[in-house]
Amino acid sequence: MDISKLMVNTKLDSTSPYYLQIAALIRTKIIDHSMTIGEKLPAERELALLFKVSRTTAINAYRHLEKDGYVNIKNGSGTYVSDRYALENKTSNEIPWPQLLKPHIQPSMASLMSELMVSSFVEDKISLDAGMPDPSYYPIDIFSKLHRDYLGELAPRDFGHIPVQGYEPLRHTIAQMLNLEGIKCHSNEVIILSGSQQGLYLTAKVLVEPGDYVIVQTPTYLGAIQVFQALGARVLSLPQREDFSFEILEDYLARYRPKLLYCIPTFRNPNGAVINTEERKKLIQLAARYRLAILEDDPYSKYYYEDPPPMSLKSFDNYGGVVYLSTFSKTLMPGLRLGYMVAHPSLISRIILEKQYIDLHSNNISQWLLDLFIKEGYLEKHLIKMRGVYKNRRNVMADALNLGLKSKISFNIPKGGFYIWCRIIDNISSRKLLQETLKMGVSFVPGEAFYAVAGEDKDFRLCFSQHNEKVILEGISRLEKAIEKFKKGQLSIPKREVRPII
Amino acid sequence: MDISKLMVNTKLDSTSPYYLQIAALIRTKIIDHSMTIGEKLPAERELALLFKVSRTTAINAYRHLEKDGYVNIKNGSGTYVSDRYALENKTSNEIPWPQLLKPHIQPSMASLMSELMVSSFVEDKISLDAGMPDPSYYPIDIFSKLHRDYLGELAPRDFGHIPVQGYEPLRHTIAQMLNLEGIKCHSNEVIILSGSQQGLYLTAKVLVEPGDYVIVQTPTYLGAIQVFQALGARVLSLPQREDFSFEILEDYLARYRPKLLYCIPTFRNPNGAVINTEERKKLIQLAARYRLAILEDDPYSKYYYEDPPPMSLKSFDNYGGVVYLSTFSKTLMPGLRLGYMVAHPSLISRIILEKQYIDLHSNNISQWLLDLFIKEGYLEKHLIKMRGVYKNRRNVMADALNLGLKSKISFNIPKGGFYIWCRIIDNISSRKLLQETLKMGVSFVPGEAFYAVAGEDKDFRLCFSQHNEKVILEGISRLEKAIEKFKKGQLSIPKREVRPII
Repeated sequence: MDISKLMVNTKLDSTSPYYLQIAALIRTKIIDHSMTIGEKLPAERELALLFKVSRTTAINAYRHLEKDGYVNIKNGSGTYVSDRYALENKTSNEIPWPQLLKPHIQPSMASLMSELMVSSFVEDKISLDAGMPDPSYYPIDIFSKLHRDYLGELAPRDFGHIPVQGYEPLRHTIAQMLNLEGIKCHSNEVIILSGSQQGLYLTAKVLVEPGDYVIVQTPTYLGAIQVFQALGARVLSLPQREDFSFEILEDYLARYRPKLLYCIPTFRNPNGAVINTEERKKLIQLAARYRLAILEDDPYSKYYYEDPPPMSLKSFDNYGGVVYLSTFSKTLMPGLRLGYMVAHPSLISRIILEKQYIDLHSNNISQWLLDLFIKEGYLEKHLIKMRGVYKNRRNVMADALNLGLKSKISFNIPKGGFYIWCRIIDNISSRKLLQETLKMGVSFVPGEAFYAVAGEDKDFRLCFSQHNEKVILEGISRLEKAIEKFKKGQLSIPKREVRPII
Repeated sequence: MDISKLMVNTKLDSTSPYYLQIAALIRTKIIDHSMTIGEKLPAERELALLFKVSRTTAINAYRHLEKDGYVNIKNGSGTYVSDRYALENKTSNEIPWPQLLKPHIQPSMASLMSELMVSSFVEDKISLDAGMPDPSYYPIDIFSKLHRDYLGELAPRDFGHIPVQGYEPLRHTIAQMLNLEGIKCHSNEVIILSGSQQGLYLTAKVLVEPGDYVIVQTPTYLGAIQVFQALGARVLSLPQREDFSFEILEDYLARYRPKLLYCIPTFRNPNGAVINTEERKKLIQLAARYRLAILEDDPYSKYYYEDPPPMSLKSFDNYGGVVYLSTFSKTLMPGLRLGYMVAHPSLISRIILEKQYIDLHSNNISQWLLDLFIKEGYLEKHLIKMRGVYKNRRNVMADALNLGLKSKISFNIPKGGFYIWCRIIDNISSRKLLQETLKMGVSFVPGEAFYAVAGEDKDFRLCFSQHNEKVILEGISRLEKAIEKFKKGQLSIPKREVRPII
């Protein structure tokens, strides 16, 4: 077995030593019979390259496995899967899990993720990939203070089961907030979710049957495409244009009768695009005519760096078809695991039934703390501060790109959100560029991760929210050097290239 | 429309005034067009009966709706759905959500739940229904102390995204705990869940396709039956016997090739039954032979009141087919929203992929606090204390039943768990009995809620964990009076009987 496949959906985290994590991964595959007795494992150097760790770490991982009897290290020859574990655990009657499991629709991009991991180890890695707020600005102190100050007001039953739909005071607070933003709704039309990913999942779950058509704008958020694909939907793409692609949408509507359009109208991930007010009104009109449900995903609209963006699609909704979804993972911190959805009561009641099966209800303590945080005005203050911080980072990154890479890449300065979406002018694929930048310790997300169907691969996404200005400048300077290499023909393609699984 | 159907899956909670909640429910149905313009609503007295509230509350609900223009109250005639809202919101193009939603398999028991609500209002209601720990013993103070003492040790990234599989230190702690209990596992075989309901859902999700057979012991936990039914499984029942029904199980295995057996081997909900050690070994043998996966749900084994119960099925698992599921909702408090699962790595990897779609990962703060709670030895202390508390309550309830109802009901004293499972000796159905006890302010769960296929209805479940001894005694004394009524022929069936939806 190609050990690089191990890496699909695998990430080393910082909670335990790397060598233990690598050993555990390999051990799993041995127990799993994905690797057979006597099979040769990658050389230590290769293993190190694969996991982006030092050679010592790779050696330690193998030694740890040897100690537990999973592998034999033969000096000068290599490391082999031992028969000891297999013998000890040899039960002719081990249950064949792979046959028992339901057939699984493999979402696209799994191979890309392994590609991302094929790189040598660089100490001071700069991640311009993950779309996350900067952890050093998480308002942890305020949450602790609220916890201290208000804990006495809680009754024991507040730590018991609460309604599936969410903690009632928080639903009220969110409904109030939304009414101020032009979304007329009652707290009964709001449901609290364990992150907005759950809203995506649940909406897709109650609407999409295998073979149904779902429209997405492309490029767009990978997690949404994956959820639709996993449910067996056929995903139709609205390509990126200067204006919203109404003629294509209308053709899709007439031709395929899709149930759902997924879109991020404001500061879209990954390209920062905004649907303007006139287009929003027209979109609602068209959707109403064709009875098309719209899932409006809105994680970024609070992060505007020029004028406030247009009102949400939901605020123009006169046919009850817009499902509005947002999250506190971007505005506050992902660890809260809280998002929310506003939709027609018919949909909300059905979503409640489904959510009940999944987790009964979201976490009580997070909901209670978040409600206090918003009520005491901290959310507003936090957003004002963060708009300033991120605006500056956006400017610094855009200036650096303009200064050093003007002739090599093109991009628009986004008016909000977390990302600059770049296009390589020369004939270099973004995957190849990533292979180079990883060697220098810079990561970004290649463009194809944002398309339902892979096309020309010359785009990539840089995230400016996670690091401070100094780190951003260093990251862009390394990116510059990587692109230089291509120009000078110094490009060396790594030996272990991972090919798509076909 | 029959307003009693409003009540399906609806529960008034204590977070906002009842009249507002009732008004909101009715409002939803008006917006929803479930109620038509001009339709007459139930008389205030009927509404009060339906929601178990006072008549004043019912009047206030209607007044509130009138103020907002949803209903007209005509004195001496009744309350009617107003045309004002309908006119204002009349859009000929409202999206037809019910048609867009995927066909939904309605789990059984929905009608039973509405039945539960048909009762008049009693001030000092005693709930012997929900299977919950006593909130007054939730260890909230200790959690707060841990929060205070250790918050400084957390890094901001601990509030960001963590692995889907769960917070690594907690997985380690749980694996350690399980190894002491005879379940040999590595932290990589453990996944943290947002409550054990999520483990039920995910296991069913990756295994069960429509038409697949799933075996359950009956009576058993309603939530499991519902999850299987919602996925289109055909549920086969193993009836309750003195011993484990091996001959029936083996017939099912040969006849239907079921994929999965769901069971609660220790202090089963609802009847407290325990599969003994010999039977456990035999069950594993049989399951291994037939390649049957077993989902072992184990929420109650820590609550034993005599000798410790047999070791878990998982500890005997020599064919990798047992999925072990447990929760902290019963041992600590539901508000943590944490459970966990231990299974073969092949299953865990697939479950991780599915959980990612559902909520990315469970709540960080709960996981971090729970890890500290266990590590500092508080869990062990809490369990010792609670075993004492619940044992006493079990004894008090059993003694009271023996004293007052010996000739009317039969029951076994459970050796652990939260419930006493009673059987009515006379020819009275438990539903009818419930209608009587509700009038006196005592609720319990009628037996048919625990069967995949409704049968004879003479069982019911009493929960002794939630209330103190004094309340338990009062509850049993009211139950006694209700049963007396049947004897004396004083039974009056309420006028508004809700019939099963057929």
